[in-house]
Amino acid sequence: MDSVKLGLLGVGTVGSGTINVLQRNACEISRRAGRNIVISKALVRDITKSRKCNLNGLQLTEDPYSVVDDPEIEVIVELLGGIDLARELILRAIDNGKHIVTANKALIAKHGNSIFEKAKDKGVIVAFEAAVAGGIPIIKTIREGLTGNQIEWIVGIINGTSNYILSEMSDKCCEFTAVLAEAQQLGYAEADPSFDVDGIDAAEKLTILASIAFGIPLQFEKIYTEGISRIKSLDVEYARQLGYSIKLLGIARRTIEGIELRVHPTLIPENILIARVNGVMNSVLVKGDAVGQSLSCGAGAGSEPTASSVTADVIDVVRSLTVNPDNRVPVLAFQADRFSDLPILKMENIETAYYLRIHAIDTPGVLSDITRILSDRSISIEAILQKSLSENNTDVPIIILTHRTFEKNMNDAVAHIEELKSIVKSIMLIRMEYLNDNW
Amino acid sequence: MDSVKLGLLGVGTVGSGTINVLQRNACEISRRAGRNIVISKALVRDITKSRKCNLNGLQLTEDPYSVVDDPEIEVIVELLGGIDLARELILRAIDNGKHIVTANKALIAKHGNSIFEKAKDKGVIVAFEAAVAGGIPIIKTIREGLTGNQIEWIVGIINGTSNYILSEMSDKCCEFTAVLAEAQQLGYAEADPSFDVDGIDAAEKLTILASIAFGIPLQFEKIYTEGISRIKSLDVEYARQLGYSIKLLGIARRTIEGIELRVHPTLIPENILIARVNGVMNSVLVKGDAVGQSLSCGAGAGSEPTASSVTADVIDVVRSLTVNPDNRVPVLAFQADRFSDLPILKMENIETAYYLRIHAIDTPGVLSDITRILSDRSISIEAILQKSLSENNTDVPIIILTHRTFEKNMNDAVAHIEELKSIVKSIMLIRMEYLNDNW
Repeated sequence: MDSVKLGLLGVGTVGSGTINVLQRNACEISRRAGRNIVISKALVRDITKSRKCNLNGLQLTEDPYSVVDDPEIEVIVELLGGIDLARELILRAIDNGKHIVTANKALIAKHGNSIFEKAKDKGVIVAFEAAVAGGIPIIKTIREGLTGNQIEWIVGIINGTSNYILSEMSDKCCEFTAVLAEAQQLGYAEADPSFDVDGIDAAEKLTILASIAFGIPLQFEKIYTEGISRIKSLDVEYARQLGYSIKLLGIARRTIEGIELRVHPTLIPENILIARVNGVMNSVLVKGDAVGQSLSCGAGAGSEPTASSVTADVIDVVRSLTVNPDNRVPVLAFQADRFSDLPILKMENIETAYYLRIHAIDTPGVLSDITRILSDRSISIEAILQKSLSENNTDVPIIILTHRTFEKNMNDAVAHIEELKSIVKSIMLIRMEYLNDNW
Repeated sequence: MDSVKLGLLGVGTVGSGTINVLQRNACEISRRAGRNIVISKALVRDITKSRKCNLNGLQLTEDPYSVVDDPEIEVIVELLGGIDLARELILRAIDNGKHIVTANKALIAKHGNSIFEKAKDKGVIVAFEAAVAGGIPIIKTIREGLTGNQIEWIVGIINGTSNYILSEMSDKCCEFTAVLAEAQQLGYAEADPSFDVDGIDAAEKLTILASIAFGIPLQFEKIYTEGISRIKSLDVEYARQLGYSIKLLGIARRTIEGIELRVHPTLIPENILIARVNGVMNSVLVKGDAVGQSLSCGAGAGSEPTASSVTADVIDVVRSLTVNPDNRVPVLAFQADRFSDLPILKMENIETAYYLRIHAIDTPGVLSDITRILSDRSISIEAILQKSLSENNTDVPIIILTHRTFEKNMNDAVAHIEELKSIVKSIMLIRMEYLNDNW
């Protein structure tokens, strides 16, 4: 039985995991793939560094071109991260006729369109299951498992760090900064956490999910992105009292006017399954017109969960090596010449429900002012929670949940409410989704 | 663009759904598949009957051979159900070089080995995503998405009727028979419910899942199967008081000695995600050595959810029409010549934890007798719940949760406990699983 030779770019956390998985499960993998799969060469930054994997039978090199130009290597597995070097090496490998497996969500989200175009010209595959939601095979599920459906929307908990922080804020009634510090100690958050907690990582993943769900080009630059750092422990607590959890969601939704693409903290009903996905776990909920709601949950990151997706891609690629490119699963789920130019909606034109936390001095009078401002804009109220005096005894928090309205309506209402004399702080506004079938 | 022609066998609930999905989403499907896909002919029992789908452009026939022998038809979609006719027509279609998509779990579980062998000889595909868990693409997830893993175990809520009944028993404190009657009225249970509530349907699905997870032949006849009809409302209530839910689970687990294959009601911790999957929903939890736990949830039955899986299979088949059979995904996930002969374990040799409900006249003395019988067999106790006198005031229920032990040990213990003079009824024994990573 012939072996297929892989070239590995990067032997960090995921690279080591991939080496371990391919070695440990070599027999199982060859029973499935019908071929042996071996990593023959791996690019590292420092050849002398010790690593958490068995490097026997595997040539380490600090020269990237000796990997991507090696004529014996048929598949390049790119696990470097970062943009410039990864992009250069992937494009060169494609030029050399090699297939690509990558976990690089930033690269795919930002440069995928041009990379895929080149890959199509050269008749090679670019696979990127590991770029979204770590070990969950969500790309395959949407791209191949739900192909009979018109996808109506996708909602994902696709950043483990943010989900861990929000879960801890909920469980322990702690503030964001305290939980973040703890998460950094535990290794769940980076020293510079902005990539995770500001929603950028989730936006990269959502870019990819939206493209394969709706057949639109990758459009990272058009996603509305808002992180979790402004969420207070008391918002988590008020939400809970009203029957909701707060999650950082990536939301992609098809409407008649266009596609909503947005990442932001969101209240969702606490009794639905995705609201119970806590800690560093990821989860993606897909609504298809035929299948209804379909939920996938699992590890969103980590060495071997991510390696699980990398390995599955490698096996798919190995099976497709001799397949006519026209018969392969299209890289972004839809045939490249049949993409849709559905516009991405501006945030002011999206429609959602809202949680408002308003602090007022004199409640009775102000409540009628607030509700009038809302009703003047046809914003109807689902629930009001008026609390007793807040800690500093100067103001009363009023929590309002509204029904769905256009964001520009709500922004206008908030601006007018903030102008009321009895309002003492700026209003906290968090979007809210019911995630039922009638969205 | 060439159209691929399908022949449909059966235009019942799933057949109508498949016609509807293929018509409604024709544009989306051709954008994905790169081909138009049309049903050209459909077999029905009664050509005059009215149906819940648009039959325009589609020839109905009562002659099965005019479908499976039609040279223009490349793919046969079998949605007849039942064994004999379905099997005959599928084998004939394979003989004619046609590819097969089927939702027939009973046929695959019982006759899949011979059907797949014939399909291999003829170089055609047999796809059966819709046979397990309706709309959830769990076959694809295990067979293609988790290929890097050694699958350690699979646990599934794979019978919607039973899950609905157990959920209602829990929510409304009703007995099995009352809920079953209600489920029959709502159309969630058949007039003859035994196929669902006795676990046979779940066993057929588990047969298929175990085969693709472990690379073993389909072995329906070796599954231990036990239904839910003996579960009492008070068991559901006691389980809840101890922090557990009762679910009908299909369990397939690889041990050093062999494979456990069993369907039975099971206590599981109520705070884990799969325990919250209620009503007619299905859910499959897979533990892989690399990915960890991966959960999929969705509709387990119904016209369009099942049609979603049928259609995804059709698109996969259409993409693979010209692919060398050696490069296709193996029908049972592993190459046909590399199956494993791991034995299926006898039930007495499986190891699990237990819930015991014992009714005794005189509690203090008998508790020491019971615990001695357990400890003599090295069965350790996790929790004891002793309740006050039961309704008829003649006996006291004692609930015991044990740690893991071999089933033969537990059977021996139960036999000895039942011999105690103070025990007034036969003991209720329900198996219990923690579903943590350390199983």
